[in-house]
Amino acid sequence: MKQELRLERVREYLKKNSLSGIIIPSNDPHFGEYIQDCYKIISWLSGFTGEAGTLAVTLDAAALWTDSRFFIQAERQLEGTGIVLKKLKTPDCETVEEWLKTRLPAGMGVCVDSDLYSLLSFRQLKKNLQPLELLPVTDPFKEIWSDRGEARAGKVRILGSDITGEDTLSKHSRIVNTLAQPTDFLYLLSSCDDIAWLCNIRGSDVDYNPVVLSYAAISKESVFLFAKRDSIPEDLVKTLCKNGVITKDYYSFESFISDYSTDIPRIAPADRLTLSKYMAATSKGAEFIPDSNRGGVIPMLKAVKNKKEIEGFRRAMLLDGVAWVKMWKWLDERLSQNRELPSEGDVSDKLSVMRAESQDYLGESFAPISAYGSNAAMPHYERDPENPVKLRRKSFLLVDTGAQYTFGTTDTTRTIALGELTQEERLDYTLVLRGMINLSRARFPQGTRGAQLDFLARGEICRNGKLYLHGTGHGIGHALCVHEGPQSIRMEENPVSLVPGMVLSNEPAVYVEGEYGIRTENTILCREWKSTAWGDFYDFETLTLVPVDKKAIDKEILGNEATDWLNSYHKYVREMLSPLLNDEERLWLAVKTADLD
Amino acid sequence: MKQELRLERVREYLKKNSLSGIIIPSNDPHFGEYIQDCYKIISWLSGFTGEAGTLAVTLDAAALWTDSRFFIQAERQLEGTGIVLKKLKTPDCETVEEWLKTRLPAGMGVCVDSDLYSLLSFRQLKKNLQPLELLPVTDPFKEIWSDRGEARAGKVRILGSDITGEDTLSKHSRIVNTLAQPTDFLYLLSSCDDIAWLCNIRGSDVDYNPVVLSYAAISKESVFLFAKRDSIPEDLVKTLCKNGVITKDYYSFESFISDYSTDIPRIAPADRLTLSKYMAATSKGAEFIPDSNRGGVIPMLKAVKNKKEIEGFRRAMLLDGVAWVKMWKWLDERLSQNRELPSEGDVSDKLSVMRAESQDYLGESFAPISAYGSNAAMPHYERDPENPVKLRRKSFLLVDTGAQYTFGTTDTTRTIALGELTQEERLDYTLVLRGMINLSRARFPQGTRGAQLDFLARGEICRNGKLYLHGTGHGIGHALCVHEGPQSIRMEENPVSLVPGMVLSNEPAVYVEGEYGIRTENTILCREWKSTAWGDFYDFETLTLVPVDKKAIDKEILGNEATDWLNSYHKYVREMLSPLLNDEERLWLAVKTADLD
Repeated sequence: MKQELRLERVREYLKKNSLSGIIIPSNDPHFGEYIQDCYKIISWLSGFTGEAGTLAVTLDAAALWTDSRFFIQAERQLEGTGIVLKKLKTPDCETVEEWLKTRLPAGMGVCVDSDLYSLLSFRQLKKNLQPLELLPVTDPFKEIWSDRGEARAGKVRILGSDITGEDTLSKHSRIVNTLAQPTDFLYLLSSCDDIAWLCNIRGSDVDYNPVVLSYAAISKESVFLFAKRDSIPEDLVKTLCKNGVITKDYYSFESFISDYSTDIPRIAPADRLTLSKYMAATSKGAEFIPDSNRGGVIPMLKAVKNKKEIEGFRRAMLLDGVAWVKMWKWLDERLSQNRELPSEGDVSDKLSVMRAESQDYLGESFAPISAYGSNAAMPHYERDPENPVKLRRKSFLLVDTGAQYTFGTTDTTRTIALGELTQEERLDYTLVLRGMINLSRARFPQGTRGAQLDFLARGEICRNGKLYLHGTGHGIGHALCVHEGPQSIRMEENPVSLVPGMVLSNEPAVYVEGEYGIRTENTILCREWKSTAWGDFYDFETLTLVPVDKKAIDKEILGNEATDWLNSYHKYVREMLSPLLNDEERLWLAVKTADLD
Repeated sequence: MKQELRLERVREYLKKNSLSGIIIPSNDPHFGEYIQDCYKIISWLSGFTGEAGTLAVTLDAAALWTDSRFFIQAERQLEGTGIVLKKLKTPDCETVEEWLKTRLPAGMGVCVDSDLYSLLSFRQLKKNLQPLELLPVTDPFKEIWSDRGEARAGKVRILGSDITGEDTLSKHSRIVNTLAQPTDFLYLLSSCDDIAWLCNIRGSDVDYNPVVLSYAAISKESVFLFAKRDSIPEDLVKTLCKNGVITKDYYSFESFISDYSTDIPRIAPADRLTLSKYMAATSKGAEFIPDSNRGGVIPMLKAVKNKKEIEGFRRAMLLDGVAWVKMWKWLDERLSQNRELPSEGDVSDKLSVMRAESQDYLGESFAPISAYGSNAAMPHYERDPENPVKLRRKSFLLVDTGAQYTFGTTDTTRTIALGELTQEERLDYTLVLRGMINLSRARFPQGTRGAQLDFLARGEICRNGKLYLHGTGHGIGHALCVHEGPQSIRMEENPVSLVPGMVLSNEPAVYVEGEYGIRTENTILCREWKSTAWGDFYDFETLTLVPVDKKAIDKEILGNEATDWLNSYHKYVREMLSPLLNDEERLWLAVKTADLD
């Protein structure tokens, strides 16, 4: 059995180094949402391909921790490997640390790759593992995983100020001002999306997130970009240089931050910098100052979109709206003509094909979800390409997809009624829609946090004894990652206030296990509304331009205010998209967006 | 000038003790909302009688810090005293620490009464005052303030289990279980309301809060109550003893906690125990363990009301509702009969007289607010008895009062339209009412925090560009303090989840400076609603039984859902109160509570 042989290699490594265990996380050194194959160590070792997991291996046991999204998949994939599945957040699930401590005598050494743990998480783990000893090691899988391959690097694109609205010189100067350091410094960056924003570069080095595998360092005077040599052609190096970005090799980052003037302090967020980079930065005695902003200084600057970026979002929404109309019309025709219906996956595939009619379409912004009936009750459903699920003329199809365009990112969910619905389905559909609209209509004073607004979306669903366990809104990057901090709209407290320029999702939902799932999601922009004697007030503009299915609405439950909002939203969608459609499509859209009477 | 002479005495004290300054807070050693006259040191020294303030005195200067509620009053009262007014939360307002540090050379000694600062606040102050030295002293005003008088102690009442629903033995055992200490301990209590709850005693030692000036200590086996000797008659001592409460003298608390077995650790919340008591408790080497619960272990236990306590609230609401009906009918008659109208204060006085018709009425639960027109725009308006403000047949009268009954506490606000209203007044009145109803209707999952629900009350007001700066809801004690923690419903994050049995206020508002103030306040009870596949859900029951003025409602803006709620609330009020009214009153109530059509 392949997995057992691979685990044996890990154990040989442990024995050779007098170690008793190893903990393997599922991230890479950049802590992004997606990682390259060469960092999929858990998958190589265990066969488990879910995105979130932690694997611990001792000389005589191994266990994998993952969350409820992946329980079924993990059970199947771990079968026969001897690796025990630990279900996070289920009763009596011991932690990785507890599991190791009950297995190993005090004082034994457990190792982790020092480039896969942030300074903060390493320190926490070290504390939690006592009386075991936690030892940082350098890339153990370099020798364990022989045919591992290297991180790939696609060609880098540079975005002009017509798209980004701000050049690197200006961003650099805002960062320097925000940091407000009395002396010179070296600020260390390892989040690829922060670097992409700062340097106005985009790449294709991981799935869905158009980032460049890179590090960066910022001094008071300069920006140093560390990317793979062959990913930036000479002419781009010059262009970057003109913008104040000095390019260096990806693999020279550690030596650079180690050798740089040692009398200048290094600054970085302790939850983003790996232990390995921290050790390099301070190896020659330089002082280390943790950046106390969660995730560092850039996420907050990056989250507030400028006029050009917002214009890019708007352009992306137009293209995306057109693609949705074409796909939906195609689906409607199949539904009405009594023809054989497509499968779930055909629908998101069709949407992708329609998007690709635009030259500015670069790809999807996350793994598309197109889930029929009870499949949609799993918020992170992934279709099995080998067993396509055919649509039927009842229940709902939930389509949650997003696109990357040259100038903007989209993320939209629509739940489409395919035929007869139960009373409960209509009720839940309407509650979700009303919640989405309720949040869209909000006006709120400066200083309001997402957690204060979350219940606007959730309230009517809760009034009916139902609940969705995920957040209502996440930040969305500009032509960048579809999930972006630091703002959020969720039940959990997040101290970040919403400010004009922030773009978020608005996606309440109801999932009825084994039956159906409903989610309606728009992208919203926080903007200034009005200054009054009571202060400055903000509101949201809905950026998404996709009709909302009216078939499942219970008008009584939706209520007048939400109905007015929906009618006016539909009118806006119609006015914006119609000029981009042919006659038939325009007619279809006119019906789809006609007033609820 | 009297104040100058008194300040001179303070300076003599400072000189005699080689000190350069003193900071005087406005609290007593128990940190309650109201204090006895002998602790009103700021008032004696400066003439300023506002409830919140901090006074700092050096050898050649003095300054008083207070918040916006008291700016006008402080300016008037400090005139000619030489004491500078510092307006908190205004631009460039230096802190007490900054003020002292710019005036005094490093190393100089500043003192505070060690019995007026909690361990936590003393430590923070000490840090913030560096490089000045902060020195704790023992009651400096014992010698400075010659005719100060002593803390008074009224007779103690004991509440039976028919009112409290739980005896001290049971409460003691729940505290011991919650603390879950491996060994014996001495838990120190100085919050009079926590002690009143624990020992099931009530008193009249401060205004409005029916507490007994007391300390307490809890071991695994016993409860020790420290109260003034003459406040507990011998037969009550015996009754308390039967309930496991050993009574001791108020003034013996420090020596008791100092001398008690020194091998037993002392536990207390560091934000409630004064430095003086902390020093006594640890003076002979006993270990100190801070109770990490904010405010200590009792507030959370006390906040969750049992069946008997809730029954007491209900009985109090019936009595209070009847008093409101009688007062309001009396006011309506004056309004309709073209007679001279009463003054603001006459209305709350009348309410008090009506309440006093019940033998169970003990007094008001806070200083009543009866504010007409622009006076109501000040959330904490206090009438000037020498200049009564007559009501007129326009604008609003805001009445916010509460009562203490033997078995429960009330807190109700109604805003009454006295005649013609502007469009803006009608709009704001309706928005406030809609917000109050919106929160009343909420259903929410277990684990929901107040900050998540606050926007339900605030949302429609904000949608119209207005805002109230105070919280929406505070906890309410059972036959105890009208303001009680740890739960709240407000904009600011508070990690405490709402749980069934908690009683809160629900009081959104709009204040238009110089014009009018509107607040509508009910008391609500958090209770279990339903368990579903999504978990346990809670909702609120409205306890208050007072009609809401319908004259100012804009039905269009109120909306159907809130109208339905109001009609059903009014029906309930009518059914509950009618049996307790005479024919005329019943008729008046029937009109007042008739359906909005």
